[in-house]
This record gives sequence, structure tokens and C-alpha cells, in this order.
Amino acid sequence: MYTARLFAALLLAVVCLATQEEYDNDILEEGITLTDSQYGSLWPLPQKVQMSTVVFKLSGASFQIVDAKESSSGASCSLLQNAYRRYFEYIFPSARKQGHVKKKTPASAVSELQVWITSADTECDGFPNVTSDESYQLSVDSPVSVLKASTVWGALRGRRPWCFKHTHAHTKKSINRTEISDFPRFAHRGVLLDTSRHFLPIKVILANLEAMAWNKFNVFHWHIVDDPSFPYLSRTFPQLSQQGAFHPYTHVYTPSDVKMIIEFARLRGIRVVPEFDTPGHTQSWGKGQKDLLTPCYSGASPSGSFGPVNPILNTTYEFMSMFFKEVSTVFPDAYIHLGGDEVDFNCWKSNPDIQKFMEQQGFGTDYSKLESLYIQRILDIVSSTNKHYLIWQEVFDNGVKMKADTVIHVWKGNQQQYQDEMSRVTASGYQVLLSTPWYLNRISYGQDWQATYKADPQDFNGTDAQKKLVVGGEACLWGEYVDATNLTPRLWPRASAVAERLWSDKDVRDLNDAYSRLAQHRCRMVQRGIPAEPLFSGYCAYEYKGV
Amino acid sequence: MYTARLFAALLLAVVCLATQEEYDNDILEEGITLTDSQYGSLWPLPQKVQMSTVVFKLSGASFQIVDAKESSSGASCSLLQNAYRRYFEYIFPSARKQGHVKKKTPASAVSELQVWITSADTECDGFPNVTSDESYQLSVDSPVSVLKASTVWGALRGRRPWCFKHTHAHTKKSINRTEISDFPRFAHRGVLLDTSRHFLPIKVILANLEAMAWNKFNVFHWHIVDDPSFPYLSRTFPQLSQQGAFHPYTHVYTPSDVKMIIEFARLRGIRVVPEFDTPGHTQSWGKGQKDLLTPCYSGASPSGSFGPVNPILNTTYEFMSMFFKEVSTVFPDAYIHLGGDEVDFNCWKSNPDIQKFMEQQGFGTDYSKLESLYIQRILDIVSSTNKHYLIWQEVFDNGVKMKADTVIHVWKGNQQQYQDEMSRVTASGYQVLLSTPWYLNRISYGQDWQATYKADPQDFNGTDAQKKLVVGGEACLWGEYVDATNLTPRLWPRASAVAERLWSDKDVRDLNDAYSRLAQHRCRMVQRGIPAEPLFSGYCAYEYKGV
Repeated sequence: MYTARLFAALLLAVVCLATQEEYDNDILEEGITLTDSQYGSLWPLPQKVQMSTVVFKLSGASFQIVDAKESSSGASCSLLQNAYRRYFEYIFPSARKQGHVKKKTPASAVSELQVWITSADTECDGFPNVTSDESYQLSVDSPVSVLKASTVWGALRGRRPWCFKHTHAHTKKSINRTEISDFPRFAHRGVLLDTSRHFLPIKVILANLEAMAWNKFNVFHWHIVDDPSFPYLSRTFPQLSQQGAFHPYTHVYTPSDVKMIIEFARLRGIRVVPEFDTPGHTQSWGKGQKDLLTPCYSGASPSGSFGPVNPILNTTYEFMSMFFKEVSTVFPDAYIHLGGDEVDFNCWKSNPDIQKFMEQQGFGTDYSKLESLYIQRILDIVSSTNKHYLIWQEVFDNGVKMKADTVIHVWKGNQQQYQDEMSRVTASGYQVLLSTPWYLNRISYGQDWQATYKADPQDFNGTDAQKKLVVGGEACLWGEYVDATNLTPRLWPRASAVAERLWSDKDVRDLNDAYSRLAQHRCRMVQRGIPAEPLFSGYCAYEYKGV
Repeated sequence: MYTARLFAALLLAVVCLATQEEYDNDILEEGITLTDSQYGSLWPLPQKVQMSTVVFKLSGASFQIVDAKESSSGASCSLLQNAYRRYFEYIFPSARKQGHVKKKTPASAVSELQVWITSADTECDGFPNVTSDESYQLSVDSPVSVLKASTVWGALRGRRPWCFKHTHAHTKKSINRTEISDFPRFAHRGVLLDTSRHFLPIKVILANLEAMAWNKFNVFHWHIVDDPSFPYLSRTFPQLSQQGAFHPYTHVYTPSDVKMIIEFARLRGIRVVPEFDTPGHTQSWGKGQKDLLTPCYSGASPSGSFGPVNPILNTTYEFMSMFFKEVSTVFPDAYIHLGGDEVDFNCWKSNPDIQKFMEQQGFGTDYSKLESLYIQRILDIVSSTNKHYLIWQEVFDNGVKMKADTVIHVWKGNQQQYQDEMSRVTASGYQVLLSTPWYLNRISYGQDWQATYKADPQDFNGTDAQKKLVVGGEACLWGEYVDATNLTPRLWPRASAVAERLWSDKDVRDLNDAYSRLAQHRCRMVQRGIPAEPLFSGYCAYEYKGV
């Protein structure tokens, strides 16, 4: 009793061909026919790819992934060894283990993938950063294929294109002769998850880091605390989570949890950038840290409620210095996100001590000057820990002085407004990160991945020099309406649309071709255990096994 | 970087109190405070409930559920024995098994729940139907509590209110002295799932039947086939699924599967009403049944595509007679849903044989007359199998003659339009079922459960006699954008809002009270393994363990 027909003309539909079987089903709904991409299920699309019609066999019984003889990397690089294992298991879910070759390689088969790291410093034990070289070359040939990359980060990105044509289930597959030369369009390709509005169990975070890697995302923006809860267990100030988390031990991230998440991400070439947002969005901080928040007044007396961080007390900055000192050691990434958004001035305005301070400073009634004073001091504190920072756009809008390498994170407005903001920020010489069109918590009925896919972070008025200041973008999944029950299908494959926009060439914009590849890519994610939701009617050869 | 504050005034927020612990968190977002319902987590709210402040202990080590001595039911009623086991395990997830009482009952504890079936015919081995008596009385007292019901169907509905106040996790609980007298407002409280646009694995269907029972739904409307696929394995016409399913053996429901689903539902007091929608929405039927669909013409020759079922061939009706004869034996329910919606006349119009038939019948160019002729014959065929039918509203709108006990299913239009339709249908003396405001496949950002909750199937202009013709309603989750990956969190707890509207008194409409109970009810579903999505920021004591 529901008409898909009405939408048919608007929609791009195709059955999912994660594995191409003899059984074909080329009509889904009247008027909708299958269109298959020449690039199979490649997602995101590489910068350059040449696929020949020559097809090689690929058998789990005779295939292995090894370090190339010339490679600067070897068995001691556990990052790569772990990657080989994961990768092998994805190609051959039910085959014998990697490294135990039993059968002789058949003719015109691929028997080996050699991974060749060319730099003397493989960066195997390091952390990825915004300047990491993620480029790679993949040559699929018989009997030996080669994946060549400067560092391990490129090798990690090169894993996935390898896995594109399965002609049979289980262990027998085939693969076309292919040459890929690939690199990312943008250096910062992030996903924001919010662990304050709902607590996300570690398992959920890890599963989504895995899915991020499949989509070549390289930044996990961890919006770890906010008004509703403070799940970060601080060694210096344990009372913050003891009092501020939803529960003091079932709903917190211990130092071990954080370390594990960072290492899990590193093994997949993903940076973990924590956000500790102040002075607003800090209600949960106030529970465990006396006098940190501004007491709001109702007339002449305190109302009992609290506003943003109190910017006029020395104790505030002493606390923040110690807190960010800890944060700077716990999180190895060169960047910390410092928030700075949506500061509500009403509480500050109500407080007589704040009023007096404003007078002394000659701020008049311009509370954005007070906000700037606070932010300025936080930026200085964080700079002193040798970290760089990202900051939400309001901090730029309010004219706060920032270091030249600050990244401004744009999130507000409609298309025209965010494009204007991108122009202004880059005209001022700052680097910029876009999220406005990628607030994936916002949902609507139908194929909203298309609008997500069309948005481009370099679509704004500006010089080439300005465009180069765009470091990338982030898909944001704010937590008001998501938790462990629905986060993963809400994020995938919608975030995959952002992933291709940020990785592939700017001219990769064909919605039909994207639909075909994305439908297959999502079935691949499902087969690997990630409940990525469907784009439209159809099926996967291997449906999700959970509930 | 996302303002919940903007929504605060519009939203009803509260932390989830599935278990009330000493750890309190009463502020979620600035301006939002906790309001707790006097009815705890009862959902849907019983018709009459009196809760005393007297609290009894409840311990898994000393509690049992037994047949009352006076009960007409006994150990041979496996429906009830299964229910006791499920129920016991929900109250005491980690306790010893039901029936092995080890400890002496402490003073002022509830040691026993006696279940007392009063009718001579318990209906234990029967199937629920639209006239089943679902009323029950529950008296929670110490040491013995009593659940009294005329038949097993009432006893099944009476299970859940029992489980409302947990003061501690694990085996130690407490419960208030309570008297409940309860019965449903409407007899037909359904959920529609669509297994054609995406195939739903059995596991997903069973999990959702379980959740339906927790919400006192009593009809599973199984929209089993449609244009995209035909997963029903027909013993008479196996080629229908061999050719029409997404896959002939991984994406079908075998006779055993169907039987198991029906029995699983029966044990929970849920009817399974299958829908075989014709003459439109039948593309998938045409793959396995030659000449069933109308060949469309492009000018003077067939275009190769097909339209609705061909209504002018005798073979069509021979096929349908055999097919519905099978269906009437496979599905024990007294009703079959016959669809009849959205018939597109363009293909019929293009076909010269159809044109000729129209001329012979004197139908002119009024193709709704041809549709009526077809539907009329299908209704006669199904009537001859001794089944009643439900039908989508178009069949009524088109003036097809129907048996007096036909149920018209309203699904179209905006609020004014569907209320007008409800008036018209009931003025004609037909029974009516409402779904328009409960198309849960339609999603929007925010707490859309509120609009769902506010809709009432008796809100239309009509006499008391007309209002009595409302048999209930159904939450519909059409399958374009849902499959195993996202169905369950999209359905729950949004369908719970429909469940309370259809079960509880019409004056149960307080959104604040509903929010508080529903947030706890959803946490209870999560704890029992159903990924019901959150209503808003907050937490459950036991978060979902899957991904």
C-alpha cells in the first residue's frame, strides 16, 4: 500500500552485486533498471584506474600477501602484518589462514600480492598526521601483483581497491588486470561521533573505526564530552567522570579504553582528534569541578543553575592548564579540537561578579569580548603543550586571535552561508574544514545520500590559494537521537558519500555510477558485519546476520 | 557543535530509569529536567491501575509462576508454560531457572504469581482472533499475587505490567502492591512488515514479533510479496519464488519458515494476517507465472514490459483460485489482506485485447470498472475458501461490492482526508482500520513519536455506531529503505506510541507522562536485546550490546 512508483523517476536503483552470481534480477520496480558501473564496487573511486578485460583467478588456497623483497618494511612491522591478515580474511572469509599456501597456483591466477614500502622510514610505529603520504600504486597482474607506497599509510589505503570483483562466493574469486594510481584529494577526512549525549560502548566505536577505514576516512573527531555527560575518565581529575558521567563506571572511557581506541585507529591509519569543548557545552564538567562554571543569578541571588565556564577566576585557568596538559599526553595527535561554539551569554549577564569584571576590562556590554578573552587564554594554554588546534567557526567569527595554522571548522548556515564563510575564513589565510552539509544526524525520508554526495568543500568564491586552504571535511553524527542501537546504520553508507567526495577527484560526480558502486560497497560492509542501511529496494547476497 | 538547546523547549526529556539506582542524573540539557511518571514504566498504560506505596520484595531465588489451583489451564498448556519461562527470565535474567525454589520466602515478599484461567475453554491450543478476550486482572500482593483472565490471550497480555519497578539489578527487585484491571480499547492492533522490497531474515521477524508482544500488538500484517520480489515459497506454484524471489533459496520463506513464524506469533497471542496484493504491485509474480500479467503495448506491438494482473483471461482466475486455496490453508487466520491499491491503468489502456474486452462489457473508458470486475472475482474466490478479507481503501472508494464484514484499511491523504475517509467508510457500515498517520517508514528529524502518539482512530465526524466500526489500526513499516540492518531501531520505540494509542483509554494523552514511561519501556526493550532507538539524550543502565 505504498507507492514506490511515484519515486521511481527520482531514484537511482539497482540491485546490489556484492557478488556477481548467475542469478540476475534486473528489474526492481517498474521503470527502474539496473545500471552497472564499469568500476564495479570501487569506493571511493581511485584518482586513476585502468581496468583491463583480462581476468585472473584468485584462490584462497593459493594466494598470499607478502612484503616485497625491495620493501623497507618487514615482519617486524605489525601494523602491516595486521593489515595483511584483515585484508586476507575479507577476501576469503572462509579460507585457510594467510601464510599456509597449500595448492599450486593455477595458470593465469594471482598468487601473490607484494607490498612494497619505498621510503626508508616506513612510519610503521608512528601515528598518522595531516601531512602523511597516503598515495599508493596498485598493479594487479598474474602471477604477482604489487602494491607500492611511500609509507605504511599509503599501503593501508591501497588495500581496499584490490577487492572488487567476486564471481563466486567463498574461496573462488576472479579479478581483472588493473592499474591504480591513487591519492586523496583532501588530507583531513573525518567522522565526528558524540559520546556525551549518549554513551557509546567501545565495541561500537571500534566497529565504526573499522568501517571508516573501509571508506578511507582518516580522522576520528571524538566529541567526547558535552552538557549531558562527561564519560572521559581523567587521571588528574577523576571526579569529573565520577560525578559527570551517566554512570561512574559503566558509562566511562578509562585511560585503557582511550589507549585501545587510539591504537585500533592507528593500525588503520586513522587519527584520533579529541574535542574538549569550552566555555559552553560544559554542564557535565560542573558536577565534578567546583567553581568551574558561572553561577547564574535570578535577581540579586544565585538561582542554583550554572552557565558557561567562569572566565574571570584564576582557578579556572589553573584547572584548564592541568587538564589540557593531561589531554595533550593522552592523545598523541598533533591537534586538539577546542570547541568554542554556541556560548550563551545570559548567565554571564546575570552574574554581578562578571558584570564588575566586564566594567574593569572596559568591555561595556559586549560579552563576545569576554568570550574572546577566555578562548584566547585557552588557546595559549594548549599552545604551550605544543599542540595545534581546531576550533568551531564562532571563534573566528568573533575575531579571536589565533595561530596561523589553526583550522576553522565550519558548521553553520545554509549552502550560501557556509560557502560565504569558507570564503571569509580562507581570505583571512586560515585553513578550513567543512561540516555544514554533512550533519548526518539530520535525517529525512528517501535517498538523502545524494545531497550529501553533491556538496563540495571547494565550491565557494575564492582564489586558487584560498581553495588550497581547505584541508577537508567531516561527517558529523551528533548524539541526541543515536546510541548503540541505531548509530551504525544511520552513519553507513551515508558517510560513504562524504568519504568519496573527500577522497576522489572533484569531477567524480555521476550519481548513477555512484549509486551502482555504493550499493555494492554497502553490501560489502554488510557482509563484513557492519549494518549499513540500504539505499533503496533490493538485496545483498549476504544479508545482515544481527537484529 | 550542535545545539540541543534550541530544541529544549519543544522536547520532553528525561533520563531512562529502567532500573532506579541511587545514582541520579536529573539534568540532561540546560532547561530540561526529569519528570517521573507515577506509573513507572508501564507501557501501554492499563485501563485501571491502583498502585499502593506498600512495597514487596521479589527475589529470583524464592519466586515462581504457577497455575492457580482453580485454573482451567494446567501443565499441558505449553503456550502458558512457555510464557511463564519467558516472563521469569525477563524479570530475573541471571537467576536460577523457574521452578527450582531454593530459599525460604522472606517476610513481605511476593513468592508466587498464580495464573488463573477462568473459562472452561482456555483456548490454549487455538489461534487468537479478532474477538479473542484479551482482558485480565492482576493483583500484586504478598505472599501470593494473582493474574486472572478468561482465556490464555488475556493471561499473555497480563504478563507485562507485572514487571515495573526494579530497585536493584540482577535478582533483587521490589514491586508495589498493585491492582490492575485491563482490556484493550481496540481489537486489531497491528504492525505491517514488508518482505518484498527487502528480504527480512526469519530472525528479524521473530525478534520483532517478540517486541510486538511486549507492546501488546496482536496482529502481524505480513506484506509478504510485491513488485520487487516474491519470497513466498508456494507449494502449488514453486516457480513464483524460484523466479520471483531475489534469490531462489537464500531469499525465500519456505512452508516450514511460515509455519514457525505463525506458531511463534500464536504463542504470543499474535495473529498472522498475510497480504497478497493484486492486481497491481505484482511485477514479481509475472516472472514465474506466464500470462498472469497484462502485456503492455507500445503502439501496435507489445513493449516487452508488463502491467497489473490480466483481468480478462480465465487462466488468471484459475491460477488465483488455486493460489488462494493454498494460502487459505497455510495461514490459519480468519482474514487475508487482499491489497487492491494503486492500480495503474496505463498498461491496460495500451493493450488492444483489454480495449476490446472493455468494449464488450460496455465499460467505455472507465478502467475502474475493469478493476472492480477483477477485485469482485478475487473476493468471491477468497470467500469460497471461508476467509474474510481486509482491503486497502481504494477498493471501497471504487465502489466494489464487498461482504458486510469486510475491513477497509485506510492509508491515504492528510489528517483531514483520512478522517473524512473514516467517516465515509463507517457511514457505509463497513469496519475500518487506520494506518495513514502511522506510516513509520516515513522519518523526520526529532521526536516524531509525539505526532504518532497524538493521532486517534476515532477522531472523525460520525455517530457512536460509526465509531464502534473502528477495529483498530496498524503501524506500517514499508520496505524501500529498511532491511535487517535498520528495521528494528526504526520500528521501536516509534511503534510503541501506536501500541499505547490502540490499547489504552482514549484519555491517556499526556505527553510528559508518556515520555517518562516510554523512555523506561525502551530501555527495557534494549536490555532484553531489542535495539530500540533512543527518544532523546540520556542513557540506559544496560546499553545495547550489539553493533
